[in-house]
Amino acid sequence: MSLLGIDLGGTKLALASFTPGGDIVARRTVPVSGCTGAEVGALIVAEARALAASDGASRIDAVGAAVPGIYHADRGTVWAPNIPGWDDYPLRDELQEAFGADVAVNVESDRAAYIAGETWRGAAAGSRNAIFLAVGTGIGAGLLVDGRILHGHGDIAGAIGWLALDRPYRMEYVDCGHFEHHASGPGLARCARAMLAADAGYTGVLRDADITTASVLEAYDARDPIAARVVEDAIAFWGMAAANLVSLFNPEQVIFGGGVFGPATCFIPRIRDEAARWAQPISMKQVRFVASTLSSEAGLYGAARLAMQRGASAQPTPEVTA
Amino acid sequence: MSLLGIDLGGTKLALASFTPGGDIVARRTVPVSGCTGAEVGALIVAEARALAASDGASRIDAVGAAVPGIYHADRGTVWAPNIPGWDDYPLRDELQEAFGADVAVNVESDRAAYIAGETWRGAAAGSRNAIFLAVGTGIGAGLLVDGRILHGHGDIAGAIGWLALDRPYRMEYVDCGHFEHHASGPGLARCARAMLAADAGYTGVLRDADITTASVLEAYDARDPIAARVVEDAIAFWGMAAANLVSLFNPEQVIFGGGVFGPATCFIPRIRDEAARWAQPISMKQVRFVASTLSSEAGLYGAARLAMQRGASAQPTPEVTA
Repeated sequence: MSLLGIDLGGTKLALASFTPGGDIVARRTVPVSGCTGAEVGALIVAEARALAASDGASRIDAVGAAVPGIYHADRGTVWAPNIPGWDDYPLRDELQEAFGADVAVNVESDRAAYIAGETWRGAAAGSRNAIFLAVGTGIGAGLLVDGRILHGHGDIAGAIGWLALDRPYRMEYVDCGHFEHHASGPGLARCARAMLAADAGYTGVLRDADITTASVLEAYDARDPIAARVVEDAIAFWGMAAANLVSLFNPEQVIFGGGVFGPATCFIPRIRDEAARWAQPISMKQVRFVASTLSSEAGLYGAARLAMQRGASAQPTPEVTA
Repeated sequence: MSLLGIDLGGTKLALASFTPGGDIVARRTVPVSGCTGAEVGALIVAEARALAASDGASRIDAVGAAVPGIYHADRGTVWAPNIPGWDDYPLRDELQEAFGADVAVNVESDRAAYIAGETWRGAAAGSRNAIFLAVGTGIGAGLLVDGRILHGHGDIAGAIGWLALDRPYRMEYVDCGHFEHHASGPGLARCARAMLAADAGYTGVLRDADITTASVLEAYDARDPIAARVVEDAIAFWGMAAANLVSLFNPEQVIFGGGVFGPATCFIPRIRDEAARWAQPISMKQVRFVASTLSSEAGLYGAARLAMQRGASAQPTPEVTA
């Protein structure tokens, strides 16, 4: 038996084949930049076939894809804002047709795949109640509660970038939400730029033209006063958001991942201290705050895991897997 | 077939028998004040038997109870802070023993029962994604997502009174959480009292000794300046909390209930306006904000509904019910 996991991002496509126990047999990564619409679908199918041909398995049993946007489970279509032409792209049917009716095919949002991966072979292995907080270009949450991934009425549960955490409301929040405005990767740079523009007496190390997430975090280490305010705010909001997840979901783990965790992983103990001030105290005692251990491969693992579960649930007698 | 629903509160015990379609056949309510520990359990069993004897049904098929606290599903025990001696009370086994092994017995937290009731015969009938926001002495949320009630790792999901919605943190939040401090029934009175103590020039209608939730809401109608600040804050926090539920859970309905909604039901349109500023905009378009239609009986309906579902899931061939 072989599983294929596919993780589609805005700039690259990663694929891996797995054993049923979750070990990677082979992997490949290709750029998707410049491709649009059905070209992206054709690329996914071609690369998946090439990987399957290379890994030596006699057959493919399940194919899972993680997508950067919303997956509409009722129609099998994907809305992915960073892939031109993917407003309502029929990825599920395309994969099913390419691999045949005997192969279990599953598509999920990337954030759902992240938590599925981490509870399979990562930081929350075996957990039935865990949340992946993905902080990168945007902020999203993969929610596993009582052993099931939450989807919501319109398949957009977990839009945690829109969390309201501080008053007053400001017009800057209209495009991405309060939490994402202050605490995503671009949010850190944006807030630093705004403070710099408003501070005529500033003598620190930041220069407007060069401000990035990384430069803000470096300036924080150099005790720059603007970087200090931006990062302290972000730590406070990461903590309040995590506290709200703990109070609402009572999880075993909150897993911090995405491009910012990464470099912000060192702040997790302080984020926990901040969360502990706000959260339901019994739930807070029951939860661990941890960094992603699968890192950029969480989506690959999760895509494969969810496809395997899809295959098992479609069979009258599910296979027992390690 | 007959179903018994039991809703245990801190001061009274309500019971009703239902048809499988959700119509009440008979009901009774008795005080529990003064009872402790096993006396409360014995009262529940005696009143349930008396109700069953009175309603004319030939047999009882399922008994469900809603409890004011945490239900530990693994042990079948209840922690109910307002019932002396119920730190870890074995209610499930007591009901099972009293009614016999052939009767499906189910226990749930009251907030879980509220949303089960409203999605059975109330404001969200037929919905698979709906949230009951119970605002009374405390604040809690009953969470139904993808057709299932969320429990969390330690059975305390939905502790929404602890939501962090505004900075800075203040020591007053340590006992009940930020949201509950400002926007529960006692919270409105507490905030009004604190403002009154700090405002030497106040000439409005509130008097410290008489401040209650009801008097604050009345003073708001009379344009009292302190009541205005307290209620405007509460509307803002009800809106931000509802926005956070919408962004995280993508529900079809948010149902406002509990003793405060009630009199605060008139604010729901303004709460929606506030939520719409903060929430994920697609999810916001998909959700309705509504008042509870079952009101104080939501827990009774939900307790019965969940017991019926428990009975159906335990049978090889579930009964088809209306």
